[in-house]
Amino acid sequence: MKVEIIVIGDELLIGQVIDTNSAWMAVELNKQGWDVTRVTTISDEAHDIEEAISSAFSRVDIVLMTGGLGPTSDDVTKPVLCRYFGGKMIFDQTVYEQNLRYFANRGLAMNESTRRQAEVPDVCTVISNPVGTAPIMWFEHQNKILVAMPGVPHEMRVAMKGDVLQRLREHVGDNDVVMHRTLMVFRNTESGLSERLTQFESTLPSSIKLAYLPMPGVVRLRLTARGNDSSIIQKILDEKAAILHEILGKDIFCDEDTTLAGALGQLLQQRGLTLATAESCTGGNIAHEITAVAGSSQYFKGAVVAYSNEVKHNVLGVSDELLLQHGAVSRPVVECMSEALLHVMGVDCAIATSGIAGPGGGTADKPVGTVWMAVRCGNKLAVECGHFAGSRSYIIERATQRSIMMLIDLLIEC
Amino acid sequence: MKVEIIVIGDELLIGQVIDTNSAWMAVELNKQGWDVTRVTTISDEAHDIEEAISSAFSRVDIVLMTGGLGPTSDDVTKPVLCRYFGGKMIFDQTVYEQNLRYFANRGLAMNESTRRQAEVPDVCTVISNPVGTAPIMWFEHQNKILVAMPGVPHEMRVAMKGDVLQRLREHVGDNDVVMHRTLMVFRNTESGLSERLTQFESTLPSSIKLAYLPMPGVVRLRLTARGNDSSIIQKILDEKAAILHEILGKDIFCDEDTTLAGALGQLLQQRGLTLATAESCTGGNIAHEITAVAGSSQYFKGAVVAYSNEVKHNVLGVSDELLLQHGAVSRPVVECMSEALLHVMGVDCAIATSGIAGPGGGTADKPVGTVWMAVRCGNKLAVECGHFAGSRSYIIERATQRSIMMLIDLLIEC
Repeated sequence: MKVEIIVIGDELLIGQVIDTNSAWMAVELNKQGWDVTRVTTISDEAHDIEEAISSAFSRVDIVLMTGGLGPTSDDVTKPVLCRYFGGKMIFDQTVYEQNLRYFANRGLAMNESTRRQAEVPDVCTVISNPVGTAPIMWFEHQNKILVAMPGVPHEMRVAMKGDVLQRLREHVGDNDVVMHRTLMVFRNTESGLSERLTQFESTLPSSIKLAYLPMPGVVRLRLTARGNDSSIIQKILDEKAAILHEILGKDIFCDEDTTLAGALGQLLQQRGLTLATAESCTGGNIAHEITAVAGSSQYFKGAVVAYSNEVKHNVLGVSDELLLQHGAVSRPVVECMSEALLHVMGVDCAIATSGIAGPGGGTADKPVGTVWMAVRCGNKLAVECGHFAGSRSYIIERATQRSIMMLIDLLIEC
Repeated sequence: MKVEIIVIGDELLIGQVIDTNSAWMAVELNKQGWDVTRVTTISDEAHDIEEAISSAFSRVDIVLMTGGLGPTSDDVTKPVLCRYFGGKMIFDQTVYEQNLRYFANRGLAMNESTRRQAEVPDVCTVISNPVGTAPIMWFEHQNKILVAMPGVPHEMRVAMKGDVLQRLREHVGDNDVVMHRTLMVFRNTESGLSERLTQFESTLPSSIKLAYLPMPGVVRLRLTARGNDSSIIQKILDEKAAILHEILGKDIFCDEDTTLAGALGQLLQQRGLTLATAESCTGGNIAHEITAVAGSSQYFKGAVVAYSNEVKHNVLGVSDELLLQHGAVSRPVVECMSEALLHVMGVDCAIATSGIAGPGGGTADKPVGTVWMAVRCGNKLAVECGHFAGSRSYIIERATQRSIMMLIDLLIEC
């Protein structure tokens, strides 16, 4: 089944907010075996909203919409939907009372514009929103469905996981199964991989697609299979994944679709090792990536963000001589920081970074983007100097991913 | 001038990758005074690509496209563009030689599919890509422009900042100026604010729009003005912002559009104060948010991510008695962690967190989402227990934002 998503909001079209809703919805819809075939992001303008709905319904029968349901004057979605589906606005007492309770529970007073949240088109089924004040609206007309949900990610997710997916399942009765298998590969470029897999690709049946999803230093290989028997699909995916393992060997460092930190966590857990980080320019981002993984407290002990030299000295015991002689951004300092972690944090493995994320602070010798990275597993050590080009956030992100990758590499080779 | 963006990639429509390109492009286009009126995300299918281009050109004259230009078999964009603009594919020797150098510089070998990167339609102007192998293609037909760029964010950004924006400026010669002014407000709901500003909104001329951009605990008020004289627009925005300051007083905690960490950084810098964080469940995310701000080394000294009790004890000196008696997730422990920072890190201000981000680790007493947060400025202390509902990443994010907000609140009231 095909679904289109319409995302409404001026804040998205001026780039103030990044749309994460549609990606999340796509993952949930895929799990049902449904495909998102298009995402259209438009402004809070009546004409654009109407046109986008008509256009989407010319291609698909199900449209999910997020955003444009706030109580303030820049939101026009509700009246547009009402007109589009040929209804009139009515006051929904149930929504009103629920919102009264919502405000009372938070010790807030209700005002006129919050009161208007209870106005809904009489041609929709109202689905209650347990975590916000904007009602979710289900429209059904000539076998086409439109569901309008709030743009606040948490509210949309609760709505989807609650009634919306369940109602869609009931409505379509679709049994098609789509399954993915993702292998994470390093030490290969996208095009190098493509060449190594030419023969493999030529043997794939038409029900299986292979996609290459590159990011710096990593290519995710995603096999997608579709059919009506999940156990057969599972078996085919297992077989194809096994062949990829034969071809690519140790270049596959993880057998599922996760973050680099997730892949590192699996390796640490398999080997019963613990980890800590000492971060200067990455500012805690490595620790954040690692602790974003559920269960990371099993192997992650902690981090020292040593943004100033005092902290490098006082907490990590990096000597003033070393800092003076080589500068904070240097091989000896990251080696020392990584070693200090083994003692200060009592861990088996360590990651340390020191660099210049910019935009200021660069010199001719050590320009912005210079990042020294050291990783350790016991007495095994790998050190690298990265030269990353781009914005501050890009440099932090690249140094984070690269240093995690360095430790994965060290562990794979151990 | 109106621009539409078309984003191509199956990986986006299955939610594996979040599109950040269009938001970034929108910000850059806005700075030129141009509006992004629609973003359409589609799959790597020839038919979808063709239809999306035709549809976009029925509404606007300029279309920017990202993605679908990789060397592997799931990318079909180039032949589609060639057919759409009525050309034929040719081999571009300049692109080929540049890619040869690109590979040589990285010590990589070129293969057949990389060689194909040098094939381009003969009806486009090729813009060189200094940071990747996919050429940027500029199509111009009957006064309509389409620019196809790689989907890798860094490559797209370099292309935009380099030739693409400059060529667009030359092409359109548009002098319309659009300016934004954003005020960050707390202690108000979106609807409460809307009520307080009814009178203000009624006095706004039609050339100025007011938008409410809510996120948990904060509403951004964005004034947008358009015209041909930037000094007049600037003056009007200044006047309107001043009136908002009169109405909202200390509820406005920042005068520009930044992150909460950026707003906190401004307050710290204005007052010459330094900061450190001690993080358990937020796992370094507060430090990451703070160090994402350029210049944060001026006021941020460092952080201790105390994920295990050993680190809370060994590095921060939280006593085993306190941990045993109250548990790590408790008021006394976060108070103690925040106080320890003043000594260990030698700072004026501190943020400390300890909580249960889930999905495991919750108890009846302290369910998942329970987060104790303490903030300090010298001997002024504020402590709060948050109860956040949602996924692990949502709980970490909410606790991060809330604790930064608590310190802003403490500083504003000092």
